Amino acid sequence: MPAVPDPATLPAASPVTLSGVAASPGTGIGPAFILSAPDLSFDTLTGQDPAAERARLDAALSESRTDLNGVREGARARLGDDAAAIFDAHLLLLDDPELGAAIQETLTGGANAEAAVHGAFGAFIGMFESLDDPYLRERAADLRDLRARVLSHLLGRPLASLTELREPAIVVAHDLTPSDTAGLDPALVRGVVTAVGGRTSHSAIMARGLGLPAVVGVGEAALNGLTRGTPLIVSGDAGTVTVHPDAAALNAAQAAQTAAQAEHARLDALKGQEGRTADGLRVELAANIGAPAEVPGALNAGAEGVGLYRTEFLFLGRGDLPGEDEQYRAYRAVLEGMAGRPVIIRTLDIGGDKALPALGLPHEENPFLGFRAIRLCLARPELFRVQLRALLRASVHGQLRVMFPMIATVQEFLEARAHLDAARAELTAEGVPVAADIPVGMMVEIPAAAALSEQFARHADFFSVGSNDLIGYSMAADRMNERVANLYQPLNPAVLTLIALTCQGAARHGKWVGVCGEMAGDPLALPLLVGLGVTELSMSAPALLPRREQVLNLNAAQARELAAHALTLSHAAEVEAAVRAVYPDLTPTDA
Amino acid sequence: MPAVPDPATLPAASPVTLSGVAASPGTGIGPAFILSAPDLSFDTLTGQDPAAERARLDAALSESRTDLNGVREGARARLGDDAAAIFDAHLLLLDDPELGAAIQETLTGGANAEAAVHGAFGAFIGMFESLDDPYLRERAADLRDLRARVLSHLLGRPLASLTELREPAIVVAHDLTPSDTAGLDPALVRGVVTAVGGRTSHSAIMARGLGLPAVVGVGEAALNGLTRGTPLIVSGDAGTVTVHPDAAALNAAQAAQTAAQAEHARLDALKGQEGRTADGLRVELAANIGAPAEVPGALNAGAEGVGLYRTEFLFLGRGDLPGEDEQYRAYRAVLEGMAGRPVIIRTLDIGGDKALPALGLPHEENPFLGFRAIRLCLARPELFRVQLRALLRASVHGQLRVMFPMIATVQEFLEARAHLDAARAELTAEGVPVAADIPVGMMVEIPAAAALSEQFARHADFFSVGSNDLIGYSMAADRMNERVANLYQPLNPAVLTLIALTCQGAARHGKWVGVCGEMAGDPLALPLLVGLGVTELSMSAPALLPRREQVLNLNAAQARELAAHALTLSHAAEVEAAVRAVYPDLTPTDA
Repeated sequence: MPAVPDPATLPAASPVTLSGVAASPGTGIGPAFILSAPDLSFDTLTGQDPAAERARLDAALSESRTDLNGVREGARARLGDDAAAIFDAHLLLLDDPELGAAIQETLTGGANAEAAVHGAFGAFIGMFESLDDPYLRERAADLRDLRARVLSHLLGRPLASLTELREPAIVVAHDLTPSDTAGLDPALVRGVVTAVGGRTSHSAIMARGLGLPAVVGVGEAALNGLTRGTPLIVSGDAGTVTVHPDAAALNAAQAAQTAAQAEHARLDALKGQEGRTADGLRVELAANIGAPAEVPGALNAGAEGVGLYRTEFLFLGRGDLPGEDEQYRAYRAVLEGMAGRPVIIRTLDIGGDKALPALGLPHEENPFLGFRAIRLCLARPELFRVQLRALLRASVHGQLRVMFPMIATVQEFLEARAHLDAARAELTAEGVPVAADIPVGMMVEIPAAAALSEQFARHADFFSVGSNDLIGYSMAADRMNERVANLYQPLNPAVLTLIALTCQGAARHGKWVGVCGEMAGDPLALPLLVGLGVTELSMSAPALLPRREQVLNLNAAQARELAAHALTLSHAAEVEAAVRAVYPDLTPTDA
Repeated sequence: MPAVPDPATLPAASPVTLSGVAASPGTGIGPAFILSAPDLSFDTLTGQDPAAERARLDAALSESRTDLNGVREGARARLGDDAAAIFDAHLLLLDDPELGAAIQETLTGGANAEAAVHGAFGAFIGMFESLDDPYLRERAADLRDLRARVLSHLLGRPLASLTELREPAIVVAHDLTPSDTAGLDPALVRGVVTAVGGRTSHSAIMARGLGLPAVVGVGEAALNGLTRGTPLIVSGDAGTVTVHPDAAALNAAQAAQTAAQAEHARLDALKGQEGRTADGLRVELAANIGAPAEVPGALNAGAEGVGLYRTEFLFLGRGDLPGEDEQYRAYRAVLEGMAGRPVIIRTLDIGGDKALPALGLPHEENPFLGFRAIRLCLARPELFRVQLRALLRASVHGQLRVMFPMIATVQEFLEARAHLDAARAELTAEGVPVAADIPVGMMVEIPAAAALSEQFARHADFFSVGSNDLIGYSMAADRMNERVANLYQPLNPAVLTLIALTCQGAARHGKWVGVCGEMAGDPLALPLLVGLGVTELSMSAPALLPRREQVLNLNAAQARELAAHALTLSHAAEVEAAVRAVYPDLTPTDA
């Protein structure tokens, strides 16, 4: 019988490298902290007493509310209002009448509370996950998180929490929920590793937002060997996790950290600087946001304004419509938060795939080519007018710019603006103050708008190119359809030609052009856009400082030459090669 | 008690005017001939003996085949091969394995034969009716017709027939089936009146094809008072039917007929003339067809070529795929039929909404922006190659031009042409003769193709603008969706701008541009298209002679001025007004 080996005489575990998705750049060194989610599985029962299940559910909802209030105040104290707002949203969702009705219906049918909660949340989660909008897809993570909280109370199995973290560590989890993230202390967490997820998962987005190195999607099996305290290096640029690193790996990681700190310091120093190319062309760098809670993050990233405030979030995931006062408060909060910087608020861009139960819209065969956005608003003026009145009332609290989405014809733009003018006249008659000068612009996301930009520019005060949809319509390819996703080509010369036409039309009437789709944050696209005549770029907050540095170093005359050359090429790959030939150090990101 | 009145002393019935849809122009005078459809209603039964029902069905199918052979030969003798071909198609459909399998499955489940036939045909009818293609929707009428024939044999209730018509009359029916139409003797029928249908119903299309005045959709109730022999005037231009006309109405109708005959004679005299404007610009006038059977009609309307042969019909409504030989025979028949005139054959434009069971394509959220046409063919080269080999083999029998649909990138065009070149090399190696010079062009129906036409024109030999889809993508509006159909605006200056870009790009490389969508047959669009630089117009056969007359009278220099002016306008309505100011006599048609 062999003797039991003495652990001290065993060789140190040899280094192992795990591969995953590079989700957030940077290098983290530290011991593992394993965040295990409780088992929330349950049996689906039928023939239960609805009243008894209702009572169980009410108790769980009440405990969840108490939880959330506590977590919110903890988050506020440690991380600020921005993080706390997530739990305001959770508290509101708990009281959502549509969700409540769906749960009650299942309970009345005799199901147990667990099954009712799981099913009703599931329908909402599915709806949000199907949307082509990273911000709104993100809301699915909130719903999953909230569902887990309610189920944990129903099942009596407490959720794990990062609040017990007391020393520096790398958080290892199946996935991070919004609650996990809000409980996370950025001063202690050195990196994030998850078993599941991709670049657009909640864990990835949050890690980028907090500036934490992260590797996601390494697989469940790869994490099984890790225990609390296992030494790790997370390489968020390479997408690797080194387990039990040796001295050479540790030295390399520390050198990478030092270099990254220098980089951060350099970028941070750019915050106060205005966006302007090396040869003096002004290029405004603005943030895309989806809710007032995102304003502090945008300002912290040096946003010179908000280039796109999507107002859809106010409308989605609820059974009723937000009233004028509720909308006014949201718009005012963003305008006040941005403290005099310009804020472009886009009117409701909803319909088709972004279902709105309160509107009762029918299913469409091709929702991307259907009844949505301004088409819906012009057909339902009673809905549109509420939003326009709320916008105008908020206008006195900052520098508002109003933008209409999905404009295809000049007629639509004129009709939409007539509604705005009528709402202004109404408010003035009521004695409500409205700002005197509110620029009114439009999205250029439909090919017809790009082709006819000269005519549109006679009326619109500015254009903002919605590159995601413009590319989709121009290439006749739905990028959510993986069979044709290869045709979603931001650098295709045809797409650049349509943006060039937009800029030429605008220039003839002294109007400016921005870009608020994903192209605005793409370093490969940036010199082309500036070269074509775009003077405002609006993107997610984490991309702002790197793009600002790029703008500051850019020579606009050289960019114009490059763009003119790109318009003569045939393939997206040729355009990319031409950009890389001039700027050999660029890497594409979708930050 | 009043005396029974003597009918002879009653006043003649006073004239009554019925209103419907003006479906086919011209004026018809004559007595009514009422075509009553038998009652084909039945009870749906379950628990039947599958073998007994199968035997009943086989007997009905056999009787239907005998019928169809007889009707076909009658049609051939009276109306020629074109009309006879409809019944070849019916005979093929009767043996369709997919349809047969669907029927057998229902029989095996214990249904009666009537229910099995009704349900299986119904699924196919629904599929064809959902398509955005008038030619293919038309196939739904064939399936309805064939279903009625089989049911009439199962139920022992004979179908009505127009073969008993012996003297001039106006045919009055609920609706006309393809069988009715093929049994109809144009020498005797003076007009058509139906209770149901619109401008694109089978009755309307067939009446226009035969040059018979027709009013459709007058309503079931309006026809109840008519009996065999009731005197009628059908005004196919006004969309009215006068019942019991008085002398004044008859005189006016006869004057209208005389004027129309003069018009027909004038147009008929144009058949042999080449399309050329008054100031000498050559504009080729070609026909759109969907099957070899349409060639005689195209030639009879003076087609100078085929501008679009849609090959989809070979593929649709069947469970398998057509082989190389079957395709070769169809393509050869068209090329030989056109006797040396140019024939543009478009490769398979299918997928998404045009479902092809043999390919097993998944449902898509936005099929118009999905995996279809050239995207499908490039991904399934084994399917594409069969068609390309068949086309090349047929090329020695006429003047073939090959056209690829749904081209979005230059890369796709080059890949598609490489497949064609490889197929040619294969055939040459096999010793199969192939024509030396086959122009290879592409549809311009995706905005990216219009925007980048200069680059495409370096490679493509010609462009054909697919205006229906180009308008849909450019305006981001699915015209089959009635909520956004108002945005389907052929005369919108944005659409004209994209066509102008296409012509400019082509001209830089000496290539020509045609239009094969519905715009090509629209008299309001014609001067604009010619003015923008389009030199080939391909349309449905009945539009050819009126458009030829318009081209012969057109001054191309004036059209260029008009087009240049239209590009500066903002609204479709302004463009229409500008065209009408120059050509005050134009009326829009969708012939």
